[in-house]
Amino acid sequence: MAALPRPSEDELIARYFAPLAGPGGLGLRDDAAILAPRPGHDLVLTVDAVVAGVHYLPDDPPASIAAKALGVNLSDLAAKGAEPRGFLLTLALADDWDEAWLAAFCTGLSETAARFGCPLLGGDTVRAAGPTLISVTALGEVPTGRMVRRFTAEPGDRLLVSGTIGDAALGLRLRRAPGWAAGLGEADRQHLADRYLHPHPRLPLAPALLAHARAAMDVSDGLAGDLAKMLRASGASAEVEIPAVPLSPAARAALAADEGLIDPILTGGDDYEILCAVAPERVEAIRDEARRAGITLTPIGRVIAGHAAPGFRDAAGTMRIFASGSFSHF
Amino acid sequence: MAALPRPSEDELIARYFAPLAGPGGLGLRDDAAILAPRPGHDLVLTVDAVVAGVHYLPDDPPASIAAKALGVNLSDLAAKGAEPRGFLLTLALADDWDEAWLAAFCTGLSETAARFGCPLLGGDTVRAAGPTLISVTALGEVPTGRMVRRFTAEPGDRLLVSGTIGDAALGLRLRRAPGWAAGLGEADRQHLADRYLHPHPRLPLAPALLAHARAAMDVSDGLAGDLAKMLRASGASAEVEIPAVPLSPAARAALAADEGLIDPILTGGDDYEILCAVAPERVEAIRDEARRAGITLTPIGRVIAGHAAPGFRDAAGTMRIFASGSFSHF
Repeated sequence: MAALPRPSEDELIARYFAPLAGPGGLGLRDDAAILAPRPGHDLVLTVDAVVAGVHYLPDDPPASIAAKALGVNLSDLAAKGAEPRGFLLTLALADDWDEAWLAAFCTGLSETAARFGCPLLGGDTVRAAGPTLISVTALGEVPTGRMVRRFTAEPGDRLLVSGTIGDAALGLRLRRAPGWAAGLGEADRQHLADRYLHPHPRLPLAPALLAHARAAMDVSDGLAGDLAKMLRASGASAEVEIPAVPLSPAARAALAADEGLIDPILTGGDDYEILCAVAPERVEAIRDEARRAGITLTPIGRVIAGHAAPGFRDAAGTMRIFASGSFSHF
Repeated sequence: MAALPRPSEDELIARYFAPLAGPGGLGLRDDAAILAPRPGHDLVLTVDAVVAGVHYLPDDPPASIAAKALGVNLSDLAAKGAEPRGFLLTLALADDWDEAWLAAFCTGLSETAARFGCPLLGGDTVRAAGPTLISVTALGEVPTGRMVRRFTAEPGDRLLVSGTIGDAALGLRLRRAPGWAAGLGEADRQHLADRYLHPHPRLPLAPALLAHARAAMDVSDGLAGDLAKMLRASGASAEVEIPAVPLSPAARAALAADEGLIDPILTGGDDYEILCAVAPERVEAIRDEARRAGITLTPIGRVIAGHAAPGFRDAAGTMRIFASGSFSHF
């Protein structure tokens, strides 16, 4: 593959990216795209980049890398209560890219875009002169003035989290050291590996968040760190009950074999679940609506007054503080 | 500087980026920004990245790098007839970054954003693990349905270009080899170097393009290549009179000393001027309106039927075709 002449950027666009374009993308034949929110709606904008060797492993399947690059942004839209409208892509390719990689990447991108109704609007492809980098700007919409904020949690609110926490952090360990946690069954290993490779943006939860959440964000850099971030922004603190944090059967099995894994579970990142603060009288309503959307929302603690870092109480009643808070890719 | 502990991403945001945020950016305290076009308007979206060593020289002044990263996107908005509304930034920092570089970069970004009324809406800062890369998604607005297209030029249209062509390509030669073109005066050298470092997005031209242009794009990859791109998209061809292409006094002086420089002038890129196709009966009107906005629009040729690459006629009447068309960064 590497010996063949590479297509020009125009050929790449026509062959791989134009088929992904939505109506506002004008077939990627123009320098810009067009988008307007529906009447009575705001656009919600978010941008996140992933870098080979930093946010994913260079030998991760290209379709999975694409699903992650778009998925992490869709996860942000979900947390804001937004419905996706489209995305723009910057693809900075390492010098050793080949067309097979790109074709598989675009297949994954196309599948993720189609699944979540988020077509390509525009992009730029450049030579990275270093590791591959993928930056996505995602656009969604919410009813005017209704975007769910991060910094509006209030003392007394209950804290809830979607799905399960820690799977991706354990999955990354497995990816890095396939012999790790030898006691885990094959199905558990598969589950953890898949959670690392493929974010499941919780877009079906968006309407419930819009209707009931006081504040929300997605959990991308670890539950402990992201919770601290939400509370710092809100000028509040929190208490979390560690035994209440929802874990998958696979994570429970791993934790049973090594109780020290609670740290990477709570701080490891790549969960792409939703953390939200909900007034007590709305907790049942939002959990019901989430359940109808096929997503479990689990209460894990509550917002309290103060500015201390959030406390995590273990089963023995000991309060722990995660000082560094979250994994930093930076 | 390198010996000091580096700030966390949150500290970077608070210190350097939050001061640049517009109202929809929510002080960069949330995971997403909010934007709605004014009633009766579409949003116009464009994304372009610049990479150290590919699109700029690593030792270019950081404020100039910032001005270029934002400016090349504002140039796209100008070509589409759009008024800027805001931008999102992905900053992938090389491992050897320091705070002095970042502070100067943000000063340049702030100045460019303020000058063109285009505030920061959101961003992501990551470790590049390679050369610095800056990706900007810029958003502007146009009256609904009125974005100026690239692919709508028609045979008979006149081709016009703003400002002067080729200065940046010559300026890059000077940057790479300071002893080059020793016969040029200091003011000319300064002019060319400045045109390489600092795009001047032609936003004041946007209303005239909206009112009168049939098609437009910005000239970023060389006049010859970008014209070919516009015509390919439009299903047409063109004839350009090389002596009509507007040159600065500095470029004229360089060309007088070495007539072979016409090639980099016409193909070199980084002009960030506007190329537009205008119906003959609108040419005087658009030139008048451009002049009132302080920008010269010069007729350089015309669109003709056919699918051949555009021909460039020199002073002797010989028609030239630029086969490769434009400089490719890729």
